[in-house]
Amino acid sequence: MRALIALGGNAMTAPDGSARPEDQRAAITAAMEAAADVVAAGSQVVLTHGNGPQVGNLLVKNEIAASIVPPVPLDWCGAQTQGTIAMLILDALEPALARRGLAPRVAAVVSRTLVAADDPHFAEPSKPIGRYLPAAEAAVMIEHGQQWQDRGERGWRRVVASPEPLESLDAGAAAVLLDAGYVVTCSGGGGVPVVRDGDGTLRSVEAVIDKDLTAAVLARQLGADVMVIATDVDAAVVGFSTPQATPLGAITVDKLRALAGEGHFAGGSMGPKVEAAGRFAETGGRAVITSLHRIGEALRGTAGTNVTS
Amino acid sequence: MRALIALGGNAMTAPDGSARPEDQRAAITAAMEAAADVVAAGSQVVLTHGNGPQVGNLLVKNEIAASIVPPVPLDWCGAQTQGTIAMLILDALEPALARRGLAPRVAAVVSRTLVAADDPHFAEPSKPIGRYLPAAEAAVMIEHGQQWQDRGERGWRRVVASPEPLESLDAGAAAVLLDAGYVVTCSGGGGVPVVRDGDGTLRSVEAVIDKDLTAAVLARQLGADVMVIATDVDAAVVGFSTPQATPLGAITVDKLRALAGEGHFAGGSMGPKVEAAGRFAETGGRAVITSLHRIGEALRGTAGTNVTS
Repeated sequence: MRALIALGGNAMTAPDGSARPEDQRAAITAAMEAAADVVAAGSQVVLTHGNGPQVGNLLVKNEIAASIVPPVPLDWCGAQTQGTIAMLILDALEPALARRGLAPRVAAVVSRTLVAADDPHFAEPSKPIGRYLPAAEAAVMIEHGQQWQDRGERGWRRVVASPEPLESLDAGAAAVLLDAGYVVTCSGGGGVPVVRDGDGTLRSVEAVIDKDLTAAVLARQLGADVMVIATDVDAAVVGFSTPQATPLGAITVDKLRALAGEGHFAGGSMGPKVEAAGRFAETGGRAVITSLHRIGEALRGTAGTNVTS
Repeated sequence: MRALIALGGNAMTAPDGSARPEDQRAAITAAMEAAADVVAAGSQVVLTHGNGPQVGNLLVKNEIAASIVPPVPLDWCGAQTQGTIAMLILDALEPALARRGLAPRVAAVVSRTLVAADDPHFAEPSKPIGRYLPAAEAAVMIEHGQQWQDRGERGWRRVVASPEPLESLDAGAAAVLLDAGYVVTCSGGGGVPVVRDGDGTLRSVEAVIDKDLTAAVLARQLGADVMVIATDVDAAVVGFSTPQATPLGAITVDKLRALAGEGHFAGGSMGPKVEAAGRFAETGGRAVITSLHRIGEALRGTAGTNVTS
């Protein structure tokens, strides 16, 4: 079985959301124990991961040091987090596999995701990133060409486009490595967004791609049998935060979409996961939404929200 | 022919050394035209690269923002630069290959280099990195566990260990991709330095590995026929900056080492390149030191300092 596991923020930060280097290393080390168990159970594994807190930190560094060191664009920050998170994954996963008597073949590819230059999201950026700033400071950033929105009491926040992922440009390399027996990390943070201009030129752009939507595209390109979206809850829930809260087990894409249409899943959190699961399931795969420590059960079909067409 | 090309700072920054994002992209785009020409001439190509100015910028951002955002260690900065430089290489190389009618197969692996935990360089850090600071500010960093040295008029500067590269831990993945027809970027910035503890744990460490010495190790691991060290001069020179300056053409390792022993090559610049070329040549390969725009001639043996055993 070929499985793609999409690791959420809780696999990369402390329980309170802190993203100090030691928090990131501890969380990833724990997550790699879970990943190694899946490999030991006989699956080929592709890993992908989020990068929100890490990118947030890099943006702040850029802003604060801008008068002394040239800031780098958002797409560069995404590439930077691919480097650090991959380093932590490789360092933790290789010995975790070796301890289980498995070949410690691990690799991470720097990965880009193709988006359309005319994606409608570019016209109306809506994804908030980075920290809140007072209006006066936001005004300076707006002068530099960024888009910021008044978010009320907490201040202003930068918004960027979150375009649709069309294709992982580096899935081919990931496939070669998977076929050779490697556990491969690919498309971290949804992949660095790039557009292809008319003359064939590739150009990375300042945007954020939802990592679970990219995971669905990558899983399809790699011919994965199962995609697991590993998050901080055991399953998607209808009636979340109400007395009628009910976790969802096995469910069809159509039923899941109907529930989504009724507004059961929050836009910024479970909503994109449900959408990503639906997209992968409708191409014939199985998608599971579950917590990090239930990945093994999820692959066996005994935990999580299991979505099929 | 399998060729490893080690790109120096001038392939990644403006002629004046500036490393703004647009400088980096322009320099790398030009370098990838040269690399694509080599692929078009029939060679399998592995790319590696330096990252000094880029790491320097990241260290400054860390320092300036430290009271607001947790700084990351030096090894993390190296991993960050692998991400950004690889992104630029991939974006530029893929269309450059396509324009030449070649399969645009490009990949970059996040790469670590094994060093010995008891490498003697750790006891006497000597590699200066980052910016100069006044004594009082350096004292604060020293309190945080860093080593800084008084460099005279310009102020104090951080020094780190530059241990010997023993093995690229990610050469295996690079080999798989090369065999599958990919142009592969590996071991950027000399690779993130990692040590293996007694229990098998891998741990990245704050150090800087000379990128040319790592290139020699990587070239050997990948079975490269030729290693090209691409820099800003056409050849290594004896009597550099004197009226008797003479560029070196074909030369044996023994003769080159004898000249190095006489002090012909500067410690921080040509010295490590000569040492790296010698190490690769003595394992049976051919090493060439030349400028970026002479890589093609260098591979044919008609330019640069050609070192053989």
